[in-house]
This record gives sequence, C-alpha cells and structure tokens, in this order.
Amino acid sequence: MVHGNLQAPEIAYETWGTLNAQKDNAILIFTGLSPSAHAASSQADPSSGWWEPVIGYDKPIDTEHYFVICINSLGSCFGSTGPSSIDPETGKPYRLTFPVLTVEDIAIAGQRVVSALGIERLHTVVGASMGGMTSLAHSVLFPGLARNLVCISSAARSLPFAIAIRSVQREIIRSDPAWANGNYDAEREPFVGMRLARKLGMLSYRSPEEFITRFGRERISEEKKLHDPFTMDFEVESYLEAHASKFVGTFDANSYLYLSRAMDLFDLADHGGSLKEGFRRCGAERALIIGVETDILFPVYQQKEIADGLTDGCRDVIWHSLDSLQGHDAFLADMDQFRPILCDFFRYETDN
Amino acid sequence: MVHGNLQAPEIAYETWGTLNAQKDNAILIFTGLSPSAHAASSQADPSSGWWEPVIGYDKPIDTEHYFVICINSLGSCFGSTGPSSIDPETGKPYRLTFPVLTVEDIAIAGQRVVSALGIERLHTVVGASMGGMTSLAHSVLFPGLARNLVCISSAARSLPFAIAIRSVQREIIRSDPAWANGNYDAEREPFVGMRLARKLGMLSYRSPEEFITRFGRERISEEKKLHDPFTMDFEVESYLEAHASKFVGTFDANSYLYLSRAMDLFDLADHGGSLKEGFRRCGAERALIIGVETDILFPVYQQKEIADGLTDGCRDVIWHSLDSLQGHDAFLADMDQFRPILCDFFRYETDN
Repeated sequence: MVHGNLQAPEIAYETWGTLNAQKDNAILIFTGLSPSAHAASSQADPSSGWWEPVIGYDKPIDTEHYFVICINSLGSCFGSTGPSSIDPETGKPYRLTFPVLTVEDIAIAGQRVVSALGIERLHTVVGASMGGMTSLAHSVLFPGLARNLVCISSAARSLPFAIAIRSVQREIIRSDPAWANGNYDAEREPFVGMRLARKLGMLSYRSPEEFITRFGRERISEEKKLHDPFTMDFEVESYLEAHASKFVGTFDANSYLYLSRAMDLFDLADHGGSLKEGFRRCGAERALIIGVETDILFPVYQQKEIADGLTDGCRDVIWHSLDSLQGHDAFLADMDQFRPILCDFFRYETDN
Repeated sequence: MVHGNLQAPEIAYETWGTLNAQKDNAILIFTGLSPSAHAASSQADPSSGWWEPVIGYDKPIDTEHYFVICINSLGSCFGSTGPSSIDPETGKPYRLTFPVLTVEDIAIAGQRVVSALGIERLHTVVGASMGGMTSLAHSVLFPGLARNLVCISSAARSLPFAIAIRSVQREIIRSDPAWANGNYDAEREPFVGMRLARKLGMLSYRSPEEFITRFGRERISEEKKLHDPFTMDFEVESYLEAHASKFVGTFDANSYLYLSRAMDLFDLADHGGSLKEGFRRCGAERALIIGVETDILFPVYQQKEIADGLTDGCRDVIWHSLDSLQGHDAFLADMDQFRPILCDFFRYETDN
C-alpha cells in the first residue's frame, strides 16, 4: 500500500438551500461507505437521495433555514478522486497505487470544500456510520469550526468484530479472480465478490430480530426459485439476493477496499494518545449522539462511549439509544424514531 | 437437488468404555457440522478428540461408568457415506447427486448404529450445535429410546439470521471457480471458498465481546505481515487466518454444503405441526439444556425455547444460561463453566 499524497484531488459535493448573509447556517454532511453526495433530491437532480426523508423543505434538516452540503468521500467513486480516477502523473487509473486512505483524509478533503465555499464556521457537522467517524475526525482536526456535532450509529474507533467482518468482505472481493489484483476492466468488475461482500454487509447492517419479524422461516414461492440446489429456499435468502443485485455494478471495488480499511484504521485515540484526550480535543459546543440497540456493527455501547467522552469535555450532549429493529441501518429505515429527534435538535437551533 | 434414498449407507463411529450387562449405560453423541466421530482419544487412536475434556476416565462423561458412542454424521466425510463417497450404482462419487440431507436422516443413521450394537435403550443422547438438533430429532423420532437428553447451544428450528449466515457461506464456496459445480478433484478443492466460509463461520462461532478482550486493536508484528496491501494488519485478522488455514483441506466442500443446508431445513414443528407438539413428542424423561448468552448463531433465547418446550411436557428439565465470552464455541472453549454442569448431570445418574 502506498503512503503518499494525491496531487490536486477533486471532491464532489451537492448543496441544498441558501447560505445566509452571516454565513452561519451551513450544515456539512459526511456519508457512510457507499453513498454518493446525492443525499436528497434537488432541481438539478430530482431523483431521490439516500437521506431523502431528512433533508429538504419542512424536513428535519430544513433547507428553508439551512444551507446543506453533502460530500462524496475522498476515495469513493461518485465524482471524488479515488482509485478509479486517472493519476495525472501516469495518465492511468491509480488502482492500488492510490495512497493509504484514512477517515481523517476524508474529513480534510470535505473541509476544503467548506473553505472553497467561503464558509468560516459551520452550524453543524453531521454523519452516520463511517460518516460519523468522519464527523468526529472533522471535530478533532478543526476544533470549533462546527458549533454542533451529530454522530449517528458510529464509533470513536473500530473494534475487532467490525474489523473482522470488513476484513472478510475485503478478502471475498480480492478472492474473485475478476478483481485481478485491482486491475480489472470497467466491463469486467469483480461482480461475484462484490455481490457476496454486500450480502455479508447486509447481515451486519440489519438485525436478527428484524429478520425473525420480517421473514421467519418463510419459503420463497416456486416461481422465484432458481434451478440451483443450494441457492435460495428461504425468503431471507431472496432478500439478500435482491439487495446484492441492486448494489453490484454501482460501486467501484477498489474504492470499497480503501474506504473499508479506512474505517478499520480510525481511532480517535490517535489524536492525543487516548480516547479521553481525543474527545477533549473535539471542538463542538453541542452534540447529538444516537445509537441503536440492535446494531451489530457499531454497537450501542460505542455510541454511549462517544456521548460520555464528549460530556466529559463539559459539552452539551444529547444522547439517545433507540430500540429500532433495523440495526445499523435504522438511520435510513426507521424514520419514525429518527425524525422527531433530528427535528428537535435542528429546530432548537433555528429558534435561537 | 435429488430427493431419494441412499443404498446401504455406511456410518462411521467410535466408542469408549464398556457396555454393561444390563445394556443401560450407553450414551450417544451427535456432533456439530464439522467434527469426526473422534470425540476423545483412545487406545486405537491416541490423538486428542474434539471433546477431549468431556469424555474419558474421571471426566464429566466418565468412561469408567458409561459406554460412549460418537457418530460421524451421515453426509459428512470422515467415514460415513457422503457426497464424496462412491455411488455403487455408478461407480463414481455422488457429488451433487447425493440426495437432500436432513437432520432427521442423520439421527436415523445414528440410531442404526445403536441398534447394530444390540442396544435397545440409551442412557442419554447428547449433542451441541447441529448435534443438539440431531439429538432433538432423535428424541422425537425415537421417543423414550433415550432416557435423558442433553442439548447444548442448539435450536429447535433454524432462524433467518443463522440461515442467512450459512447461505452466504455456501454461496462463497460455490462461487469459488474450483468448486466446479461440485465436480472438483481431490487435489483441486475449492480452498479459497472453504477458507472464506470458515472465516465467516468463526465470526459467528465466537463473540464480539471475546474479540475485544483478546485482540482489541492490537496490530500484528511486522514479521507476520504479508506483502499484500489489504490482508492483515490487526491481530483479529491473523486469528481468523490461522483458524481458516487449519480447516482448509480437512473437510469436503460438498459435505459442508449438504450439512449446512440440513441445519437450515430443521424445524421441530415439522413433527406434529407445531413446536409445542414437536416438544410434546420428544421422549426423554430428563433433559439438560445449556445456552450461552454471547452466542450469535444459536442465541440463548432459542435454548430457553427448548427448555420451556420440554418442561411443558412435564419433564424434569435442567436449564443453564452461561455468561461465557466464547459465544457458540463455549462448549469447546469454556470448560470451566461446562465441566461442573456436565459432571453434575452425569454423576447424579450414576448414583441412581
């Protein structure tokens, strides 16, 4: 893996709403591993965004009041420079010559967008999952730049179970002969590996309890069955297949590997030598931390750790542990529980 | 998948101790997915068995008192007829022409060994994991044949999360080009697929809590590092690699697929139309049910379900929920907690 610097990386982003005259209403959103910067629909792109129920007119992050910026992570494949981008020095894609990527790099790249937009102070930095790590990294690298921090279903550092899941996902992708040591053609991507990595991902993004409620031991109908002895028999298998099929072909495999490893490497304790010191250095005045009790990948005690760590710095911390069935994906799937909390947090601010 | 009958299947087994004159001291052990019948060392084979701390002189299942039989599951690859065995009709290995395998088939095949040994009544039928399912199947198919039932970290039916994990494991194996639709050569087995399936298995056999205690965020030493950018960086990755390497080459891939699917298919409710009726039909007078709170694959509420279901039939049920860190593998790894419980259960009996 190459340790080095990129020359003039590009960062893709989208915005919604209008920056006010005081330039104090900007909200910066970092994404999880796989989404693009298209968090919500807009005039320019009316297709539904990945956080459509949260961002927009009369929604929890109300674009009548806020100027919202969403960043496509450095290393991703939706406009920002990543392993599939052309290296200006060679005229060829970086592929595995792309340097080691860290969550901190993603935060710094996002902050460059903020600076380029002439914004000196952010109202809030927001992120869920990997995006929550990036928000924490932003908060510790640029203390005070964002007045508020929203960190959802994330972690101050990756623990070994999550590292192990991601490690197996990466090995699945790399074991697909089509991966070709990272040198696959656009037409011949490691589809098999990406499909399987996504299925394993879905197991970690949802919860056993939800699967019992949704699928039980239901069998799939005869017409949906494939003529393959071991593929699909139960509804839960058909569900995984549907999700994997939707994902495959939409995300660059090398980007996946780099971003996945960046999550493993993240440890807030790298900033000052201990988690306690890392939290102390975080700059937000007020924080909203949300965790979900059924989350396997970023367990709720890791959210509690963030809430406690930030409180220790005498900040105003609002902490919620939700009993959603949807596990890690609840911030995308369980709007009934997330909407009122986000509304409260952002409404309070607009009244002040 | 073929539905049919095998002609004269062979069943491998091992025994320890001596059948007494009354023929009432025989204990039948069914295994989990991957072990052979070699549960403990013996004069014939002094190598350590998979349940060495449990079976032997002065051990919880004391071979001074008991005649112990361990069965290699039908469909496995350690002497019992399985997909790699020669089909006498064709003179070639069954491979995928092996018929659909169920846990009930494994129980029936085990019972044939008991009959062949001239044993009419068993002291106890014992199993953990898939072996626990097989013990339940034995109990419902041959009610009263075993006076006691010991069922550890198992389930009365597979739930969708466990089915999903196993489904992904099977797809990983089948996606390895070396699997060759089941027609691999002995020298060219799907090693890559088996290695990855085992790693995913290890994630479900242990617990996140144990990983935190054992590995934390420890990095591997420089000399252990491979020169591959994404393989191993953390101790937990090295642990998975070590376990996978030990497993690969020891187990037939097609056997794995058949046994794995057999677990998915198991549902005690198939015996009488409901779980309640299935439990009612189970024949044991006394049962020992043990679950582990950190078990992800066979969660402790499934053990509680078995204990409650059997109690409902007015049986004498001893029920333990253990707080071992080792998850599903605790029955192999946490002898400090299992030994006294097993000793109590089997000592009581010898005193009567």
